[in-house]
This record gives sequence, C-alpha cells and structure tokens, in this order.
Amino acid sequence: MRVTDERHARLLLSRLAEPYDERVQRVVAEHGVEDVVGYAVRDGRTPDGVDLGRLAARVERATSLDEAHIARRLGARILIPGDAGWPEGLDELEQPPWCLWLTGPGDVRELAERSVAVVGARASTAYGDHVAAGLCVDLVGRGFTVVSGAAFGIDAAAHRATLSVDGSTIAVLAGGVDVAYPRANAELIDRIRRTGALVSETPPGGAPARMRFLARNRIIAGLARGTVVVEAGLRSGARSTVKHARELGRPVMAVPGSVESLMSQGCHAEIRMGAELVTDGAEVAELVGRIGDDLAPVKQGMARAEDRLTDDLRRVWQWLRPRSSCPVDEVMVRCGLTLRETLAALRALEQDGLAEELLDGWQRRPLRVAASSRVEPTR
Amino acid sequence: MRVTDERHARLLLSRLAEPYDERVQRVVAEHGVEDVVGYAVRDGRTPDGVDLGRLAARVERATSLDEAHIARRLGARILIPGDAGWPEGLDELEQPPWCLWLTGPGDVRELAERSVAVVGARASTAYGDHVAAGLCVDLVGRGFTVVSGAAFGIDAAAHRATLSVDGSTIAVLAGGVDVAYPRANAELIDRIRRTGALVSETPPGGAPARMRFLARNRIIAGLARGTVVVEAGLRSGARSTVKHARELGRPVMAVPGSVESLMSQGCHAEIRMGAELVTDGAEVAELVGRIGDDLAPVKQGMARAEDRLTDDLRRVWQWLRPRSSCPVDEVMVRCGLTLRETLAALRALEQDGLAEELLDGWQRRPLRVAASSRVEPTR
Repeated sequence: MRVTDERHARLLLSRLAEPYDERVQRVVAEHGVEDVVGYAVRDGRTPDGVDLGRLAARVERATSLDEAHIARRLGARILIPGDAGWPEGLDELEQPPWCLWLTGPGDVRELAERSVAVVGARASTAYGDHVAAGLCVDLVGRGFTVVSGAAFGIDAAAHRATLSVDGSTIAVLAGGVDVAYPRANAELIDRIRRTGALVSETPPGGAPARMRFLARNRIIAGLARGTVVVEAGLRSGARSTVKHARELGRPVMAVPGSVESLMSQGCHAEIRMGAELVTDGAEVAELVGRIGDDLAPVKQGMARAEDRLTDDLRRVWQWLRPRSSCPVDEVMVRCGLTLRETLAALRALEQDGLAEELLDGWQRRPLRVAASSRVEPTR
Repeated sequence: MRVTDERHARLLLSRLAEPYDERVQRVVAEHGVEDVVGYAVRDGRTPDGVDLGRLAARVERATSLDEAHIARRLGARILIPGDAGWPEGLDELEQPPWCLWLTGPGDVRELAERSVAVVGARASTAYGDHVAAGLCVDLVGRGFTVVSGAAFGIDAAAHRATLSVDGSTIAVLAGGVDVAYPRANAELIDRIRRTGALVSETPPGGAPARMRFLARNRIIAGLARGTVVVEAGLRSGARSTVKHARELGRPVMAVPGSVESLMSQGCHAEIRMGAELVTDGAEVAELVGRIGDDLAPVKQGMARAEDRLTDDLRRVWQWLRPRSSCPVDEVMVRCGLTLRETLAALRALEQDGLAEELLDGWQRRPLRVAASSRVEPTR
C-alpha cells in the first residue's frame, strides 16, 4: 500500500509506534513522518540504515484497518496538527501526539482555551476527593473546563463534580477512546463522552498500557492552561503531569494538606519546588485565567488598559508573577517571544501600569483581588 | 534624682515608656537615652520643646523602685545592649528593647544562636498542637532551642513538647517575668523558668497589656534564627511574628494544613507570600541551621569546604536559596555586607562548589539531603 499524505501517515504511525517514543520521534524529525511510515511499510528500515523493525512489526494489522470506518462507528473524529479543531497547546509539547482521537460533543480546542487540569492520586483520601470536587465546582462557575484522566481517586472526583454542575470536562485516556478504563469508571467515562470530550492519542481498541499512562499525562498538561495537583504521594504519576506543565511554562499549582498525610507529601514537595499553593478556585483562576475575566473585582479600574492588550502583551502579563520578579530572559523563554518583542511588551505593560521593573527583573503589578475569603495580613 | 549612666537610663525608660513606642524611639534617636530620661525626670520636656508628658507621668513610681533589689528577689538578670549576655539578634530589630529582664538558668544569648521560633494560633486545633509538638521534638533532637510566647494553643504545645524531651526553651512574655500569663499556663511558665529562660522587656510587675503582645512578637522573631508558624488564622497575631522575622531577613516558614481549616489559612497565605512550606524538622533545620551541622548526611563530602568557611561565607551561603537564584544586591542587603565583601564571598563559595552563578543571580549549590521522608520526584 502507498502512504497517501501526512494525515494517512500520522494515522498509520499512531498504530505502528507507541506514543512518546523518543527514538521514533528522532527518526521522524530527520526524515519526516510520511517517509518514515513509507520506509516502515516498505522494507522496515530507512535508506541510511535506521532499523524500523519495531514499527514494521505492526504494519500488517495497521494497513488492514479502515480508520474512517472505525471513526464513523465510534462517532469519533481524528485530528492532526494544523487541523481547525487541533488544540494549539499540544504544539508546545516536546513530543506532540501524531494524531488525536476524539469523541463527545465538546469542541476540545475551544474548551482547552479556558481549562485547568485537576489531577492527583488514585489512592486519594476523602479530603482530597472533597477538595477536588469543591475546586472543580468553583472553576466551572468561573467558566473553566476541567481536564483530567478519568482515573480512580482525584481524577474521578474532579470529573464527577464538574458533571454534577453541568460543567465541561475533558478526559484524556491512556487507551483508545472506545476503551473505558478503569472498568469501574465506565459509567463516568460514558457520561463524559455524552456531554464533554474523550481524547486519546492511542487508536481505538488500544489497551491502556502502563507506559501510555505516563505519555497521556503530557497531553493533559498540554491541553490545559494550568495544572493543579490536589493530592499526590511522593511518587505519584500525577507529578509527571505537573512536571510536563512546568516544562511547558504553564502555571503549576498544588493544594496543601495535612503534613501527616502521605497523599499530601507530593503536593508539599511540589510547592517546595516552586508550585503555587492554592486553596480555592479564585486562586487558581488568578493564575490561569485571562486578564480581565479573572480579576473581575478590579475590572472597572482596569477596563481601558485591558482592552488595548494585544496577544503578546496578554501573554507576557500572564507570565509575570505578582509577588516576585522575573528576569527578562526568563519571560522571553516562557512566552516564546523574541527578546525585542518581550522588551516591547514589557515597556507597554509598564506604561499601562500592569508591570514594573525591579532591580532583578519584572513583576506583575499587584492588582489586588478583593476575593471573599482573603484579607491582607495584619501589619 | 540623677540619671547615673546608660544602664540606669534604660532601666528607667523601660518603666516610663511602653515598649515599641515609635515616638519615644524617635526622641531617643535624636537626644540619646540618658538625656531623654533626664529631661523626663526633671521637667517633662526636651530643650527643643518635645513634650515628654507621657513619660513624666510615671516618673515618681519608676524612681522609687530599687531595681537591683527586685532583680535579686526574683533571681532575675537585667541586660542592656552590649552586655556580654545580650542576644545579638535583637540588635537587628528596628526597635530593640531598652533592656531585657531574664529569669531561668538558660544562657539566652547562647541558646538563641541555634534557635527556632515556633508560633501560632491561640485557638489551635488538635492537628496544629500535634504537628507543633512533633516539630519541636525533632528540632530538640537537632540541638535547637525553641522560642515561643507561652500563650495558649501552638505556643504552649511547642514549649510543652520541648520540655518533654528535656529540650531548651525560651518563653518571651508580654508582661513582667514574674507575671505568669495566661494564668492557666502558670505551671508551664514555671517549668520554663526552672529549666530554660523567661524573657521580657516589660519590667517586673508589668501587666501583659494588649499592645505588649504585639511588641513581644518582635522579640521572639529577633531572638530566633528563623520563625515557623504552625497554625494561624488570617488575622492571627502569630503573623506579626512572621512579619518581623521577614523584615529581619530571617527564614520564614509555615506548616500547611487542610484548606478547609480556618487555622491553616494564615499559614497558606504566608506560603503564598513567600514563606517556605515546611513539613518536618529536617526542612526547618535545612533553612535555619548552620552549614555542616544541618546537612549532616552529606557531611563527609563537605568536610573540607565547611571547615574553611569564614563568618562572611557562612552568612552568604545561608542566605542563598537552593532552588531559586538571588541577585547580588539582594544577597548584599540580606547579609549586611558591602558589595565588595558580598562578591568576594560569592566567588569563594563558587570555588568551593557551594554556590553557582546563574543568569539572574546566585544559587546555593544543591547539596541533596538524604532526609528519610523525602525522595526526588519521579521524572
């Protein structure tokens, strides 16, 4: 068979290779996805001798499948990078998925634009489940979509709470979108399919293998604007989601808990590593949200300044921290702008009173939010 | 009566003025303590017309007292700045006490050199009391003295736990060292007097008036090398101790707890403002302790480097942060060194592998502590 185009090649590759396989990524980076799949299908190696045996082993089954038929049967869509519905956040991943399978009525690209990943331990405590639920209900009220992994524990609590208040939720699965795993969450996963979106880079029928869970976590981090870990043991997989979010330069947050709870140890470790401690949805929204929307109480005073914000300015402003300064080169890296663009944006923000230059970098101007439960410390 | 010398003047002034009275501090800064007390005793105003009426009102009683006799009767000592036993940390306060009354066998100056303030809410929860106790027992095992305020709640839990393992503890009282307040803690205060030290800037007999509690908090912060707040409501007085510690540039730490506990809200707010989240004594010791002593597990590898550390190097090293960089000017301010001294110290530390220069400042070299309960996050 012939590889007809990039879409075809990516679909085949997602059948041939495991997601997040660095060796395959490297070969693809060199030869392009269409050629690599072509070589794999034809003779199992590249012209310069790279062995594609691992890919070739699955060629027969992969080429025998009618993906369009499978998609129709499942009511699924298939997206590749550049498609209108492709969530842009995934392009910032070091290893974006080859393609994405989606089911459910939700427009993932649009939902992801205002979304928070709420993740945590499978072996969560009642405290963690309860806090995750409260956080999600709060975030739904602020118009956020909740992204999680449909696992036991915190994931399930997050999805369930979101659904309970008719919020939007995206579940990123490690197996195919037609594979409800864990089985005990089948009903939950089905509800998400009916009202939100199920997403997976693993083709339909694919089993939720162990390594696919870790790979899946980078998609959760890539879809969401920020990641909150509610409970996590020191070696929890949820911390890999946090790690990906941090690498993407997205806000990373953790909920504290008892120092005697094993399930809060991972959260406390993340906070000690720089994650922001958050206790409610307002604090999450302040970090993750869009300027103006999420600083609502001071909106009047801000109205003119916000309205004029270009995408660059907004991006830079959102990356500045309210209580510590950030050097220009760090702002630049985080925002993905050139030095010239970064400096221009910073100066413009300064003129609007939205940023100020300190000795060691730039700081977001402290627009105090009159959040209900927070007061200034006594002086 | 005549004011014979500075010691006499300070003793009188501590009877005439409230501690932490900014107006009095200002007059004293201008005229000197002996002259101000002399003016107050003689005619109630300075030659340039500043009204010392508030001081003059108490002159009759103050001059009638035989302080030496009172001290003997109480078994108390009186220290003024510069005395051999005066705790140096207090000199860094914006408003050091005029003098200090001490009872108990403890050498406060020496104990303070390796001490942690453990403070918190009066209305603490069982969780807070328990964590405070565990923390203090741990710190005693590491050779630290626990400084606190003998109040209900966290303070009492900290002192009690320290005494339970025969640790050293200093209670800084708001009233005189002979005034056991709160009454219900009289037995605890008496135990501290017998084994540790009671400290107050309020002369004997002085009532624990409201404003004296806030003033007292700065002495707790000034004595201790660092301050941990275990539980605190948003408007807890314990946060004023934290504020003083922060102003002194000393390590400020907070213990997290349930986001649903009012008594942890103040701790979470402090962490969001930059306090270090701590969960056990090892983490406190790492921030507050002396180099070498408190990184014990890597001591072998460090032995030569530590031994050569001068006071300047030690001070600079202790102020550098392990996970974020600190600009030179901030290091300079925190350490109270000149720019030249700071740079010299940083370069010397760099040569010893104890610091490294990053793009935006200096960072303490990450000497991993193999603490029992902490592991690296999964990658």
